[in-house]
Amino acid sequence: MRAFYHPLQATHDPLHFMRHGRVVPAKDSPARIEALLGGLERLGITPDAPAGDLPDARLAVHTTGYLDFLATAWDRWQTLPDHGPEVWPNTFPYWSGRPEELARPDCPAESVVARTGWYLGDLSASLGPRSWESIRESSNTAVAAADAVAGGAGLAYALCRPSGHHARSDRASGFCFVNNTAVAAQRLRGSFNRVAILDVDAHHGDGTQQIFYARRDVLTISIHADPLNYYPFFTGYTGETGYGAGEGFNLNLPLAHGSTGEVMAAALDTAAHCIQQFGADALVVALGFDAHARDPIGVLKLEAVDFGDIGARVRALGLPTLVVQEGGYAVDVLADCLTAFVEG
Amino acid sequence: MRAFYHPLQATHDPLHFMRHGRVVPAKDSPARIEALLGGLERLGITPDAPAGDLPDARLAVHTTGYLDFLATAWDRWQTLPDHGPEVWPNTFPYWSGRPEELARPDCPAESVVARTGWYLGDLSASLGPRSWESIRESSNTAVAAADAVAGGAGLAYALCRPSGHHARSDRASGFCFVNNTAVAAQRLRGSFNRVAILDVDAHHGDGTQQIFYARRDVLTISIHADPLNYYPFFTGYTGETGYGAGEGFNLNLPLAHGSTGEVMAAALDTAAHCIQQFGADALVVALGFDAHARDPIGVLKLEAVDFGDIGARVRALGLPTLVVQEGGYAVDVLADCLTAFVEG
Repeated sequence: MRAFYHPLQATHDPLHFMRHGRVVPAKDSPARIEALLGGLERLGITPDAPAGDLPDARLAVHTTGYLDFLATAWDRWQTLPDHGPEVWPNTFPYWSGRPEELARPDCPAESVVARTGWYLGDLSASLGPRSWESIRESSNTAVAAADAVAGGAGLAYALCRPSGHHARSDRASGFCFVNNTAVAAQRLRGSFNRVAILDVDAHHGDGTQQIFYARRDVLTISIHADPLNYYPFFTGYTGETGYGAGEGFNLNLPLAHGSTGEVMAAALDTAAHCIQQFGADALVVALGFDAHARDPIGVLKLEAVDFGDIGARVRALGLPTLVVQEGGYAVDVLADCLTAFVEG
Repeated sequence: MRAFYHPLQATHDPLHFMRHGRVVPAKDSPARIEALLGGLERLGITPDAPAGDLPDARLAVHTTGYLDFLATAWDRWQTLPDHGPEVWPNTFPYWSGRPEELARPDCPAESVVARTGWYLGDLSASLGPRSWESIRESSNTAVAAADAVAGGAGLAYALCRPSGHHARSDRASGFCFVNNTAVAAQRLRGSFNRVAILDVDAHHGDGTQQIFYARRDVLTISIHADPLNYYPFFTGYTGETGYGAGEGFNLNLPLAHGSTGEVMAAALDTAAHCIQQFGADALVVALGFDAHARDPIGVLKLEAVDFGDIGARVRALGLPTLVVQEGGYAVDVLADCLTAFVEG
């Protein structure tokens, strides 16, 4: 297995997020990277750095306005009087759902406060002084791994961080900024006709769903904890099946809170059947480890060994496979989960 | 002039709002009420309390789900582990603008965290233990004043607090929860065929605009600081003229930051012309004092005497008039502004 990672991905070091009305310490620490690199080392794998910056790969799934915001927000934020230590939104656009609002426009206001609320969709996606270079390189890591798969590597791993699967075409949320999984899947489309995305992070892959919702060339499947009482709350239900040409090409498999590896395995069987029916030529696995029982913000009950089972079921699909790292916040189990998955 | 106010409106006492990425002390203090009551006393006016609770008046402009949330959120919030001292949102719904999202549905999730983000649209609309009774009575105050106007009082003043004009049919924001101005205008529609709303608060009346945007029986006009760089940022532009049957029945008059009473007067001339053309039978003035030069979150440069000029121009319209208090956060100038307006 080839693996990819860029050292600048560690420079994003968010301070805070908001939870239950309190400002609390961030969960997406750079220590997650050390843990995952430790897992690769145990497997005897040394990751390669991506060759260079490929902004077009990001532009293929995100808007120009959004990417410009991510790259420039920190500098603009410094001009605000009495500003806090991070770019953090405080007000958000409203959509009445009326026909005149059918096209989500770009932010009409100039103010960086406005643009922050437009492009950062919640209080768990703060930007610090060096966040952009991490975000940028995380996406480049995904592209490099996609190119390895396109070049014939049967399996490649992108150690992406920050994560991506909550990022919409024009909005960050949930520790995610550029949707690395979507960037990679789109990149693979240059070499494969039908790409399937299988998201096993404990949270619904709402950004990935949104980006491909009206398309039938990329199948999106997400297995996640029931969003009725779990982030991202507003999406991830079974009724969300795609739109227009994409109708029938999005599958959500919410799991009851407290579900173990056995329940995950049953959902994976359903997903595998769907991927085969779709006739996928290539697979992107959005791999979170926050379904682990010890995850500090988790509600599922998987053990490290269960990620081995996920790995085995992915292998059984027999497809060229790109694994993109998503969440997982129990730092001391990440290496075990990753090695179990890869060995599976 | 008759005036209305309920003492429970003082129990809402928010602690915080978020500004430039910092948690800062709230601006909407109960001291604002004392100042406005002082202004009424100077005018020799003793306000009456509303007769009772009229939930149907709120339901006429807000959704059931939203009103239920406002009434129950505090109790549900107490069940969250490690919750903060106020009901405060941390994540928000996303609208892609796709046709399948045409109708804004009710929040699909059960979680109070989700519902808080669905119904509280920003970090400047926190709910405390006694907020709901203030919100409820603030709307009842508006209804009582509307009934006085409908009953023949030429002029009535509703000392509403918390304010209302940012509140959408199903979302709070900007210190506003129930849209008292909209509740009052809708109530007046029971007695008058054509009701005009003139909003002179320094912030765009985005909630009022949204509630009546597709209707031609209620004309909405807002004069406010240019939202390009001022709250609420995303609305308040001249291109927003109404929708469907309401096309041509919404007028936004943004003012350059730093504008004085003279610029306001010119905008009022435009508004007055529009109100006359519309053939209004009754007028609701959404009266904020945050256009005052000393307002701590203001960008306009009016003096107290300029509110006298606004009052005179309102009087010149010769319409049955209901004045609903909106914003204004320079506590020590509120009484001067109010007396100047009423004497004008």
